[in-house]
Amino acid sequence: MSDTTIRVVQYGLGPIGSAMARHVVQCDGMDLVGGVDIDPTKAGRDIGDVISLDTPIGVTVGRNLSQVLEQTQADVVLHTTGSFFDLFEPQISEILEEGLDVVSTSEELSFPWLAHPEAAARIDDAARRAGKTVLGTGVNPGFLMDTLPLALTALCQRVDRIDVTRRMNASLRRGPFQTKIGAGMTVEGFTAQMKKGRMGHIGLPESMGMVFHTLGKTLARYESDVEPVVADSLVKTEHCEVQPGQVRGLKQVARGYTDQGEFMTLTFIAALDEVEDGDTILITGNPDLEIRLKGTNGDIATVAIAVNAVRRVCEAPPGLVTMRDLPIVTIW
Amino acid sequence: MSDTTIRVVQYGLGPIGSAMARHVVQCDGMDLVGGVDIDPTKAGRDIGDVISLDTPIGVTVGRNLSQVLEQTQADVVLHTTGSFFDLFEPQISEILEEGLDVVSTSEELSFPWLAHPEAAARIDDAARRAGKTVLGTGVNPGFLMDTLPLALTALCQRVDRIDVTRRMNASLRRGPFQTKIGAGMTVEGFTAQMKKGRMGHIGLPESMGMVFHTLGKTLARYESDVEPVVADSLVKTEHCEVQPGQVRGLKQVARGYTDQGEFMTLTFIAALDEVEDGDTILITGNPDLEIRLKGTNGDIATVAIAVNAVRRVCEAPPGLVTMRDLPIVTIW
Repeated sequence: MSDTTIRVVQYGLGPIGSAMARHVVQCDGMDLVGGVDIDPTKAGRDIGDVISLDTPIGVTVGRNLSQVLEQTQADVVLHTTGSFFDLFEPQISEILEEGLDVVSTSEELSFPWLAHPEAAARIDDAARRAGKTVLGTGVNPGFLMDTLPLALTALCQRVDRIDVTRRMNASLRRGPFQTKIGAGMTVEGFTAQMKKGRMGHIGLPESMGMVFHTLGKTLARYESDVEPVVADSLVKTEHCEVQPGQVRGLKQVARGYTDQGEFMTLTFIAALDEVEDGDTILITGNPDLEIRLKGTNGDIATVAIAVNAVRRVCEAPPGLVTMRDLPIVTIW
Repeated sequence: MSDTTIRVVQYGLGPIGSAMARHVVQCDGMDLVGGVDIDPTKAGRDIGDVISLDTPIGVTVGRNLSQVLEQTQADVVLHTTGSFFDLFEPQISEILEEGLDVVSTSEELSFPWLAHPEAAARIDDAARRAGKTVLGTGVNPGFLMDTLPLALTALCQRVDRIDVTRRMNASLRRGPFQTKIGAGMTVEGFTAQMKKGRMGHIGLPESMGMVFHTLGKTLARYESDVEPVVADSLVKTEHCEVQPGQVRGLKQVARGYTDQGEFMTLTFIAALDEVEDGDTILITGNPDLEIRLKGTNGDIATVAIAVNAVRRVCEAPPGLVTMRDLPIVTIW
């Protein structure tokens, strides 16, 4: 593929999708040829205008993919619409019916074989019939809590347990992200939303599933708890103000067990003014490994990994693949 | 391959090869079926005895591969004899002629396309003719200074430079390793050996080559300097004693340049009583990434990564491959 320009449609033009489309425009060997969004304030406008480029691209945003493909030909779709199968499965089917490869940031697609085996099999079948490849990827799920720990086990003769912690200072993130982690809520409000299953990071079961499956382990039990992180003192950001006693973010811990006991924990902490920003991967075994990462936070890396995966997806055999099935993804 | 037992011959029964053979014996789904070593004190003895198992394996060590294959059938060879093409090329050819896959820890094989393109092409041709796969791997080269930094660039929209430092406290390593890094030499002796090209870690050009090639960059200039690390005070280990003013180890820095300037540095420090033991990968770009690893040192990880790579090599298409061409290697 290296000598041909890959033609990309951006499906979903929210903040992440728009940033992804802008990055595609900057990449040599990749052309942004179209965009899809159901938002009536975006559909019908030039995509360059919608994603805030200085110059128009000459293609209008379509409300669906077929509208876009009436204007242009394409090779691959970057898909950034939603996290859940209910929403994205028809979209992925539509893309495959149009005969295009897909790189998606939908969390539940990153390793769907555990939580959604039937829907995953449907997408895999459709992809094989179309002769195209579907990949769900991202920083988390897709890399930090699954692909990277798995890659590090290459150095181990024995792995007894894996513990990954991601700690994010949300003060510098977008307003919607701060809202999503509960910043500014009362503890009561947070608890009520939590009981409805509406608080917490999406993707921990997918990361856990990928690691267990790849290491040949059966996930005998999975637990996940979310709790609010409460402010001790006043916290102010560009987007919100949190009084002492109110919520400044959340802490979520997922635990995966084999028949022999707990094998893996995934801890996700995202809060305003969180001092220790970074990721830690601890692998207990022979040898013990300790890996600390800084700089992985933010939307930049999500945009990067999806765009960087495009070449691997175009080269891969047909079907629904995951990050652990592909040769390492590197910068475009 | 997951349902079949892979039959392994260990080629080279020095300390690393023996440890590798012992690990193979412990791995479900893998059988140690033979061993090769030219050492007359090893050839002819039961391999279980040579690698210090409690019980014999029932196969005698051969002085060459054909002697072993008269006794047994095999699928793959774990190859741990030497670092340099002159030595290992005939051995790899012999293995391919016998119709076996190869995982080798020979440093110059980990990415031979830059320093030894003609010999690499010969091995690649022979492997394709045999329908078999050849992989050079290891911790360094093979992972920490090449595959892992490359995998981390997945998170980047732009990479301006990469700096990797590996700092090893050699006090706890084997005696021959301490000798290799110059521990106990005079500075004059070290300098004389250095001028003959006999001091320094092997594999830095291979790591540099893999990174440049994978990122589509031309290595316009490559520099490598070795200097002694001198003891300030008396250093004692199980294996040697170093007086103040004598050498306790070495520091090697390799620099890779594009036409635009320095893009990558690889720093290798191995010395007795080196306090800060660990690896650092700095990627400057968008975003900046900082990764610190502890626990990767030692022979355990070298044994692990070679054995863990066996399945990928058995599954891979024929030819000479490198770690960046395969799906991620994970624990067996």
